[in-house]
Amino acid sequence: MYRTHHCGALRIEDLKQSVTLSGWVQKSRNKGFIVWVDLRDRYGITQLVFDEERTPKAVFEKAQNLGREFVIQIRGSVIERESKNPNMNTGAVEVLVEELTVLNEAQTPPFTIEDQTDGGEELRMQYRYLDIRRNPVKEKLLFRSQVSMAVRNYLTDAGFIDVETPYLIKSTPEGARDFVVPSRMNPGQFYALPQSPQTFKQLLMVGGLDKYFQIVKCFRDEDLRADRQPEFTQIDCEMTFVDQESILNQFEGLTRHLLKEIKGVEVSEFPRMTYEEAMKTYGNDKPDIRFGMTFAELNDLAQGKGFGVFDSQELVVGIAVPGAASYTRKELDALIDWVKRPQIGAKGLIWVKCNEDGSYKSSVDKFFSPADLSGWAERSGAKARDLLLVLSGEAKTTRTQLSALRMELAERLGLRKPEEFAPLWITDFPLLEWDEETQRYHAMHHPFTSPKPEDLEKLTTDPAAVKANAYDLVLNGNEIGGGSIRIHDQKLQAQMFDLLGFTKEEAQAQFGFLMDAFQYGAPPHGGIAFGLDRLVAILGGEETIRDFIAFPKNNSGRDVMIDAPASIDALQLEELALKTLPKKEE
Amino acid sequence: MYRTHHCGALRIEDLKQSVTLSGWVQKSRNKGFIVWVDLRDRYGITQLVFDEERTPKAVFEKAQNLGREFVIQIRGSVIERESKNPNMNTGAVEVLVEELTVLNEAQTPPFTIEDQTDGGEELRMQYRYLDIRRNPVKEKLLFRSQVSMAVRNYLTDAGFIDVETPYLIKSTPEGARDFVVPSRMNPGQFYALPQSPQTFKQLLMVGGLDKYFQIVKCFRDEDLRADRQPEFTQIDCEMTFVDQESILNQFEGLTRHLLKEIKGVEVSEFPRMTYEEAMKTYGNDKPDIRFGMTFAELNDLAQGKGFGVFDSQELVVGIAVPGAASYTRKELDALIDWVKRPQIGAKGLIWVKCNEDGSYKSSVDKFFSPADLSGWAERSGAKARDLLLVLSGEAKTTRTQLSALRMELAERLGLRKPEEFAPLWITDFPLLEWDEETQRYHAMHHPFTSPKPEDLEKLTTDPAAVKANAYDLVLNGNEIGGGSIRIHDQKLQAQMFDLLGFTKEEAQAQFGFLMDAFQYGAPPHGGIAFGLDRLVAILGGEETIRDFIAFPKNNSGRDVMIDAPASIDALQLEELALKTLPKKEE
Repeated sequence: MYRTHHCGALRIEDLKQSVTLSGWVQKSRNKGFIVWVDLRDRYGITQLVFDEERTPKAVFEKAQNLGREFVIQIRGSVIERESKNPNMNTGAVEVLVEELTVLNEAQTPPFTIEDQTDGGEELRMQYRYLDIRRNPVKEKLLFRSQVSMAVRNYLTDAGFIDVETPYLIKSTPEGARDFVVPSRMNPGQFYALPQSPQTFKQLLMVGGLDKYFQIVKCFRDEDLRADRQPEFTQIDCEMTFVDQESILNQFEGLTRHLLKEIKGVEVSEFPRMTYEEAMKTYGNDKPDIRFGMTFAELNDLAQGKGFGVFDSQELVVGIAVPGAASYTRKELDALIDWVKRPQIGAKGLIWVKCNEDGSYKSSVDKFFSPADLSGWAERSGAKARDLLLVLSGEAKTTRTQLSALRMELAERLGLRKPEEFAPLWITDFPLLEWDEETQRYHAMHHPFTSPKPEDLEKLTTDPAAVKANAYDLVLNGNEIGGGSIRIHDQKLQAQMFDLLGFTKEEAQAQFGFLMDAFQYGAPPHGGIAFGLDRLVAILGGEETIRDFIAFPKNNSGRDVMIDAPASIDALQLEELALKTLPKKEE
Repeated sequence: MYRTHHCGALRIEDLKQSVTLSGWVQKSRNKGFIVWVDLRDRYGITQLVFDEERTPKAVFEKAQNLGREFVIQIRGSVIERESKNPNMNTGAVEVLVEELTVLNEAQTPPFTIEDQTDGGEELRMQYRYLDIRRNPVKEKLLFRSQVSMAVRNYLTDAGFIDVETPYLIKSTPEGARDFVVPSRMNPGQFYALPQSPQTFKQLLMVGGLDKYFQIVKCFRDEDLRADRQPEFTQIDCEMTFVDQESILNQFEGLTRHLLKEIKGVEVSEFPRMTYEEAMKTYGNDKPDIRFGMTFAELNDLAQGKGFGVFDSQELVVGIAVPGAASYTRKELDALIDWVKRPQIGAKGLIWVKCNEDGSYKSSVDKFFSPADLSGWAERSGAKARDLLLVLSGEAKTTRTQLSALRMELAERLGLRKPEEFAPLWITDFPLLEWDEETQRYHAMHHPFTSPKPEDLEKLTTDPAAVKANAYDLVLNGNEIGGGSIRIHDQKLQAQMFDLLGFTKEEAQAQFGFLMDAFQYGAPPHGGIAFGLDRLVAILGGEETIRDFIAFPKNNSGRDVMIDAPASIDALQLEELALKTLPKKEE
């Protein structure tokens, strides 16, 4: 037996026990006549002591040569520490070692196995198995496991059944790019890896399973933006005989359960906001509502006063930044530069300081009277000591720019508190988006989303105005879940495919099975999918998902540890009846 | 709201309540003045009644036209049935309908939605969403969900953490054929889908996670034998600082828990048998021990008596078939034909009837005396009324043939009782198998399996004799799990790759990351993986896995419902820098 106890187990109550421990040498302090070793495993650290007088000579000598990350097994007895460490669970005791076995030696790791490591991202990923030994990474993986299990328990208790849907499915050109898998048994044909189990979960509802969930890997062959992964995990759910209200309640329940169970945070009823309201108030369909700085539209107050920059624009809009009237000229200039960066793309930024004494100082004092500025301040809710920032331009672009500025300022002002949780439902999304490039409509969620019944007529007359029974769950400025009531009527589904530019033949070839299914008694149904990677990261108080994934890929979609993807055998290619071509330059 | 109750909920206590139900029309009986409808959902069936006198006229008329599988919603009041059905949970009541909404019509399904359907396998798979509505399929999927959750609960309580390993990994030529995924971002390169998360779970142990599990899809591009799937599900587990004994105990615990929790069956300590013993006693490394018919080797008794068929053979071996002395000549001839079929390939079959009166009648009476035959009977444990069946030939082949015969007879005699559970550990597998075709050793489990420490020296002198620290868990004649203690020493791992015919360069290119990892303090570790599809089927009392999978593929690896695999866009191929070739004829 390798151990009688974990390295986090021993307490003062265990004094005089003979114990066997196994683990890694975290560090060793050699005082000549005495050697202390911190022995580490997943559960904690126990201090070992090798003492010239009390430890067998051969063992004491072997202890001299223990390096960092050596794997050892010891037998010894639990003794009381002379100087206790109250910050450690095992800090009252140490183990006086009698036997020592080196189970495996270790080369010096390429970075230190410490909370604050000296290893950079690239190195950490290459030696991910060492990185995982570090507490911050290990804790994140344990945390993820805990969240997954809490999700499963909640949904199982609520009558959902876990059904595994297939990974080898069919490629569909709609949506993002699929990863494909050549079929050897069906030469020239390909499977696709699922971007989501969408159609399968709908078929399970047609099949009468009533409530389905699955925690499932999904795949998307996108050019990776920062913090996106080609494979990611969804909590995928679907329900039958439900309207939007039932779904929102059910998954508000799940989210509240997680916050309570995992974080000990009680959250009251989640606020709801329409897509339109979110865009107007926050310039964003996933607003962070942990803080204010809501948008104030100033067109009526700020136009026609001779300030040309504003006058011709579709929208003049501002936010009140709390306590920022103290910004220096230099800080303000830096902000102006920040919004002018190509990533934001604003032409400029107007500022108004609301001074403590009720006066105003602005970058447009030449054009606007204190009474004008007071009007702006009132509308935006700016109080004394606040800084009013105003952008103008084409409405959609300007809102996006101001939203970015709002988030940046919140970050700088420390308003995005990781341990504060502000969930929010966004509802009433448009059904369709017009795509200028392809000159056709795209589904804003996906082609299976149901229009609102009251908007059905507009599908033919004014498609862009049709609202969908679709909803997103937003947490702290991140979309953590999204879903919809689905179409369950064959004719309406066919009409949707038509609107989206599918010919009848294309629709039949790609989704014939679904439309067939709708003819055999398809019930009303709807669902939601949560991004587990993101959800776990946000619950964990972080915004990047990478360390919540055991073996993530880098921004080129590579696993640098195993060095994948890689070339394959000529024989493998031949069996697949495939030839690789030199990649065309674009 | 679509419903106040499920269709399995109402009881006599609910009398006079006004309820809303939604579901499918299972069947409808129209007596002219009264219409009864069985309304079905996942949870059960409730009888609806439409009555000329008590139901609003318009509703009554609509009820005349309800077809099978129509999706409807009704409101009505719960009344007591005149003739109760004690076999149904809801059999004491019915709902007198006041309002009826047809939520969706249904075409006549291509097969009946009944426990005993008229639909063949092919049709059921094509309309799997309708097949799932049938109780036997629905119950199997619910059962699977229940087993998965029981596994998760047990392992979580035992301190295992659920870690998701990547699906896009690297292809390795060792073992079965990989499915590969072309990388668009890395032209000419491919990911592979995992055949198991083997190396990743080992790296998690190197990373100190101590106890890992995952219920995970795995992929194997094999020519499909009956009841194999290209994608299948494993319960994948790994532990650190353990020897074989700890692992057997831990997973015996899991299996016992499942049998108790899911089937209410208490099983005592699992018997253990070495691979060698299993092969000698059952001709099989996954013996079904719910019944006897163990092998009796008869060489010393049956050779040298002038019966040429036996004399020159390596092995003469028989089994005693209980109660089968009554087989007619015709039945015996059929058995002889059965073993001569090419799938079995025996040259013939010798039989000995042990008559009730103590006499013997055999197909070799010319060569053997009653005393000879009595000796055979004694060794094989044949009693009066039993039938002794004897095969001879090359030892390995003959054992395989007799094993097949034993299983066939057990099936015919009803000895393979689905509700009886007989687990068994097989241990001490050989480390290597010699492959005549490639003239080299293959790993019997996989290249990461540890040799038994006492056999380490034989690795160079007599590799075929080396035993592995490997074990299988067998349940009712099926291998449901298998695992091993792994190699954690870099040098030993390199030696293994060398034995398996890898050059140093190949080993480095394919598994360099693992051998690197072993140099940074790899702990002793080992694990096991269970085939979930098979485990669930056997617990469910069946031998075929297909109906325990929501959307299985057929023997050509096709999903006939969605019609995958399929050809993909020329544009997709171009982006992947791939060209499909006409498949070569072989």
